[in-house]
Amino acid sequence: MSTPRNSSAEFGPVLVIGAGLIGGSIGLALRRKGIEVFLEDADSQSLATAVSMGVGRDADTLAQSGAVPSIVVVAVPPTSAGTVLAQATKRFPAATVTDVTSVKASVLEHARVAGADMERVVGGHPMAGRETAGAASSRADLFDDRMWILTAPETAQSDRIEQVRQLALLCGAIPHDMTAEDHDVAVALISHVPQVLSSALAGQLASAPEGHVVIAGQGLRDMTRIAGSDSQLWSEILSANSTNVQGVLRGLMSTLESLQDELSRATATESVRKFLERGGEGRLRIPGKHGAGNVEFTEVMVMIADEPGELARLFAAVGEVDVNLEDVRIEHVLGKPSGLVGLFVNPVSTTELIDGLLSRGFDVR
Amino acid sequence: MSTPRNSSAEFGPVLVIGAGLIGGSIGLALRRKGIEVFLEDADSQSLATAVSMGVGRDADTLAQSGAVPSIVVVAVPPTSAGTVLAQATKRFPAATVTDVTSVKASVLEHARVAGADMERVVGGHPMAGRETAGAASSRADLFDDRMWILTAPETAQSDRIEQVRQLALLCGAIPHDMTAEDHDVAVALISHVPQVLSSALAGQLASAPEGHVVIAGQGLRDMTRIAGSDSQLWSEILSANSTNVQGVLRGLMSTLESLQDELSRATATESVRKFLERGGEGRLRIPGKHGAGNVEFTEVMVMIADEPGELARLFAAVGEVDVNLEDVRIEHVLGKPSGLVGLFVNPVSTTELIDGLLSRGFDVR
Repeated sequence: MSTPRNSSAEFGPVLVIGAGLIGGSIGLALRRKGIEVFLEDADSQSLATAVSMGVGRDADTLAQSGAVPSIVVVAVPPTSAGTVLAQATKRFPAATVTDVTSVKASVLEHARVAGADMERVVGGHPMAGRETAGAASSRADLFDDRMWILTAPETAQSDRIEQVRQLALLCGAIPHDMTAEDHDVAVALISHVPQVLSSALAGQLASAPEGHVVIAGQGLRDMTRIAGSDSQLWSEILSANSTNVQGVLRGLMSTLESLQDELSRATATESVRKFLERGGEGRLRIPGKHGAGNVEFTEVMVMIADEPGELARLFAAVGEVDVNLEDVRIEHVLGKPSGLVGLFVNPVSTTELIDGLLSRGFDVR
Repeated sequence: MSTPRNSSAEFGPVLVIGAGLIGGSIGLALRRKGIEVFLEDADSQSLATAVSMGVGRDADTLAQSGAVPSIVVVAVPPTSAGTVLAQATKRFPAATVTDVTSVKASVLEHARVAGADMERVVGGHPMAGRETAGAASSRADLFDDRMWILTAPETAQSDRIEQVRQLALLCGAIPHDMTAEDHDVAVALISHVPQVLSSALAGQLASAPEGHVVIAGQGLRDMTRIAGSDSQLWSEILSANSTNVQGVLRGLMSTLESLQDELSRATATESVRKFLERGGEGRLRIPGKHGAGNVEFTEVMVMIADEPGELARLFAAVGEVDVNLEDVRIEHVLGKPSGLVGLFVNPVSTTELIDGLLSRGFDVR
C-alpha cells in the first residue's frame, strides 16, 4: 500500500457492537485519531455510559443518517460473538467485520455456521485488558504497543485483512498474524492453562485447615494471583477453547503423573531435579518485559520503613544513581512496620545500584 | 517462665553445623545479641568465608577450649540433616539439638533411626530465605519477624523445646508450634506443590513453538517465577516430603481431571465457573502481607516514561499524598520506553491517591 499504514484518512465510519471495556477503549482510541465511531449495545445503560464518555455516537443516529459503517467491530462475550458476527455481515453487506474475543477458531466457525459472509470476516484478539470491566473503565491508550492478533480465515479478502490491520494500528497496537488454530493453541498454553492451574491450586486452599494456610508466603501469592479473575468471562473462554485447553492439560498432567511415580521411588532426587531444571529452561523462554528476549534481571533487596515517604526516598536515590528499574516488588515483614523492596535491574547495573544505595545509607540486603 | 523470653543471659554457646545462608544468618543474628557462636562445615572454604564475615568462631577452637555447646543447630541439606542430628546428640551428650530443614517428619525419623537421643532433639524451620545461597549471603536480620516453625517430637523434654523457642526469639523470629506431620502437610500445600506446578507449567514452555511463547504476558510470568529456584535443593525437599506432596498433587490432579471431563461436555460453562469461583474463594484465605488477614488491595495504574527518575517522581507524589503503598508492580509496554506502574493500596485510600496523582499531572489509568 502506498498510503501510510496508520493514516486515518477515509477510515470508517466504525460501528462497535458491545460497549464494554474493549469496545469502549476501541472507540476512544479511534476517536483520538478523528475517526467516526458508532456504538450499539443490548444494554441501554452500558450504551449510555459509553456515549457519555465520548466513546462514540449511539448507532441509532447512524441508521437515521443513512450512512453505513465500513468496518464493524464485534466486542461481545465469546458465547455470542459468532452469532453477532454473522448478523453483522447480513446487516451491513459491504462492511468488513471483525471481533475481539480471546478464542478464535470456535467463534469464527460459529459465525460461518450462522451464515456469515466469510469473505468479509477477519478474527482479532487485542492482547490487552484491565482487571475492571465495563465501558466506564475504557481507556484510549489500552492497546498502545500491545499485540493485536489477526486471524484471517482462508476465505477472507486481502483488502479486508488490511482494513482490520489498519484498525489495530489506528488503535495503537502491533498487528500480529496467526491462524485461528495456532492462536488458540498458543493462548491455551500461555494464558488459559495458567488460569486453570492458578484456580485449581487456590481451590485446594478453600478446604485447607486455617493453620496450614496461615504460614503461606510470596510464592503462593504469585501462583494464585490470577485465580481472582472474572469467573464468568473465564468460564466462557475455557469452554470456547476447551479442546486446546484439554490438550495442554493432558501434557501437563502426564508430566505430573510421571513426577508422582518418581516421587514414590527411593531414587527420586535425580529425576525430580531434571524435572525442575526443565522448568527453569522453559521459564527462560518467556520474553522480557520489553519483548526483548531473555534478559534475567538481578534483584537487589532493600529494607525500608513501611510508611509514606520511604519509597519516595528510595526511588529518588535510584534515580540519582541513574539505573533503570525493570520491576519492583514490595514484601512486607510480618507484624512489623517495615518492608523489603526488591529492585529488579539489568545485571550490568547491579553493582552501581548497590554501591549507590549503600553510599546513601540504605539497608541493602 | 519468669525471665524475659528474649533474654540472652546465659544462652549458648551455640554450635552451628553448616555454614550456608541459614547457618550463617543464625550466627550473625545471635552474635548481635552477644551470644557466643561456633561454626563447623565439611567444606573448609565455606567455613572460612563465614568466619571472616563474623558469623562465629571456627569450632576447632571450641574443642581446644574444652567448652561445650548448650545448643547445636544443624543447618545442612535435607538429605544429611537426620544423620548430622544423630551425630550431634552423640558428640554433645548434654546439648539441645535442632535443625532448620524445610521438611520435618522424615528428617526427625532419620535422626531417630540413626540413634539420636530424641529427648534432646527439637525440629525447626525458619520460614525465611534468599534467592542467593551460601554464607556470603548471610544477614543478621534474615529471620526478623518471620515465622520459625518448631516441631517437637513427643519424646522431647520441655526445657529443650523452650531452649529452641528461645533460639528463634533471639534470632528475631516468631516461634510457631506445629507437629512435624502437620508442618509437612502444610508446606506440601503452600510451598512444595506450588513449586511443582510452576516447574511443570514452565516445563511445557520448553518445547513450545517460539511463536506461541512470544505472545505471553504477566500472568504467565507470575505463574513461572519460582520455576527459577535452585533445582538441587528443591529436588531434595520434594523427595524428603514426597508422601505429602503426592497427596496434595493427587487432590489437585483429581480436580484437574474433573475439569477435563467437564470441558469435554457442551454444558461446560456453568461447572467451569464454579471451579473458578472456588479458586477465587481459596485465594482470599491467604494472609495479607502483614499477616493481617484478607484485605484485598486496590490497584491504581499509572503510565510513566520508562527512564531513570520517573519512578522517583511518582513515588515522591505518592509520599506527598500520604498514602501507604502495599505493593508495586511495573509492567513495561512492548517496544516502547514507557511503563505501567500498578500501585496497590488499601481500598479506603484509593480515591485520595487517584485525586492526588491526577492533580500532580500523572496519567492515572
